[in-house]
Amino acid sequence: MGVTVIPERPRTAFDEATAVLPLGGGRFAVQPDERFAIGGAVNGGVLIASMLRAVLHSSPHPYPVATSAHFLRVAEPKRAEVHLTWLKEGRTAATARATLVQAGVPVIETVVTTGALASAGADPSDGDADAAAALSWTGEPPHLPPVSQCRSLPAARGFTGQIDIRFDPATLGWLDGQPDGTPEMRGYLSLREERDPDAYLLAVAVDALPPVVFGLGAVGWAPTVQLTWHMRNIPAPGMLRVAARCRHVSGGWFDEEAEAWDAAGHLVAQSRQIARVGRRRRAP
Amino acid sequence: MGVTVIPERPRTAFDEATAVLPLGGGRFAVQPDERFAIGGAVNGGVLIASMLRAVLHSSPHPYPVATSAHFLRVAEPKRAEVHLTWLKEGRTAATARATLVQAGVPVIETVVTTGALASAGADPSDGDADAAAALSWTGEPPHLPPVSQCRSLPAARGFTGQIDIRFDPATLGWLDGQPDGTPEMRGYLSLREERDPDAYLLAVAVDALPPVVFGLGAVGWAPTVQLTWHMRNIPAPGMLRVAARCRHVSGGWFDEEAEAWDAAGHLVAQSRQIARVGRRRRAP
Repeated sequence: MGVTVIPERPRTAFDEATAVLPLGGGRFAVQPDERFAIGGAVNGGVLIASMLRAVLHSSPHPYPVATSAHFLRVAEPKRAEVHLTWLKEGRTAATARATLVQAGVPVIETVVTTGALASAGADPSDGDADAAAALSWTGEPPHLPPVSQCRSLPAARGFTGQIDIRFDPATLGWLDGQPDGTPEMRGYLSLREERDPDAYLLAVAVDALPPVVFGLGAVGWAPTVQLTWHMRNIPAPGMLRVAARCRHVSGGWFDEEAEAWDAAGHLVAQSRQIARVGRRRRAP
Repeated sequence: MGVTVIPERPRTAFDEATAVLPLGGGRFAVQPDERFAIGGAVNGGVLIASMLRAVLHSSPHPYPVATSAHFLRVAEPKRAEVHLTWLKEGRTAATARATLVQAGVPVIETVVTTGALASAGADPSDGDADAAAALSWTGEPPHLPPVSQCRSLPAARGFTGQIDIRFDPATLGWLDGQPDGTPEMRGYLSLREERDPDAYLLAVAVDALPPVVFGLGAVGWAPTVQLTWHMRNIPAPGMLRVAARCRHVSGGWFDEEAEAWDAAGHLVAQSRQIARVGRRRRAP
């Protein structure tokens, strides 16, 4: 096709890193970007954001309501392709399979269902919205201290140099060698560059905090094996509040559930992942 | 191949309904069973159980640790096939793509990651288990009244005639036209036939309760669009305790998170789905 969807003037490193180039036949070129790598591996959420750009490029609906991802291999900062197949295009929802392929091998397998979302500020009694579409209910939001009382970690090269997280100090005991025994993590999140949150940034936000098992003292690389996230509302500008918890750890597996709430107080994204407990360093 | 994995003496309707017949080349015949249908549509969890049988038939690991499913179309009680492709077979985890196909069209798209689980009763300090594998932590279990204080619904033909659920009366107000305004559902679950829970029954249990939005008065058919579930432990014999909650409803979408705990008190499965709010009946 030769048409590019790379913005003519990419405004942020994040938009550059997640840009895709349609190659025709459901194939898209992507360039996993070492500016978003952690220890040589490009962050999974950033790769998912690239894959979502490929999906939304030809989607009949505007938002990635449900994205399931199975992480197969570590993505290196080298050229890759997204291979896209639409499985169903319905009036309410459409579903595509998208595979990230690098050196001929699948790296991430995703299935994405797109749809419409209620505008967070809309009046549900407007017009002819029916009772089902008008039903609105939300659980309790997470509690975070004011951002002024939160703590930043030193920015390094790669992912942590791009993402600004202000941590709830109550979830940072592990950093000082005093994990508090609770597998939770909370913080305010934004890009360090000026850029409002959208579906692509939400894909990163739902897996951007340190693993919740750090709170149990299991500090180490904890690879995500499978992650599903749901976009629930269109985020308002401003920092996101992200809170993650866990329900069970055993056999080397742990789950992590994260929610992202926008600056206007709306629940905008939910995720659950299952990951491997990081290997703790042992004294030699 | 001509080899059948249908048990020689199927002991329950559930085992018959979820049997698969390998056809070679990664294809398996399945027969969606009207004994597990609700209003002409075969229950999604029962179909997932069939697909998991196909996956585990050739999996290097014994348990479906992570199953993500996107529901594309309604499955009818007619012959179907599972098309299976292994994407990665690793030492800790293996991942397959499995598609349920009926009349040449994809009906359910799943990706399944298999692995090993800690035996729920195992001593984590046994042998040379390392620190990561030995880490064990579990959140608070759901609270249910004793089964003797729970309430059954009248069994009908189809799915509800196969599954025995004893509901926490606190979550059944909608049945008497008095929804209590909380999107929760809890109950004890087993097959009506004598059969211990396993991975296949867990696939059903995590989506067997009535939709949580019934508790908000939105009683009606609420189709699951996407569901991911994680198997966390090997279930002990006996009834499962299943508890489901919700975090957000808007734009006609709701999420539902369910947990299944076994009779020995272990968290054995977790799910989250996103579904469409059922249309309420209106006065003419």
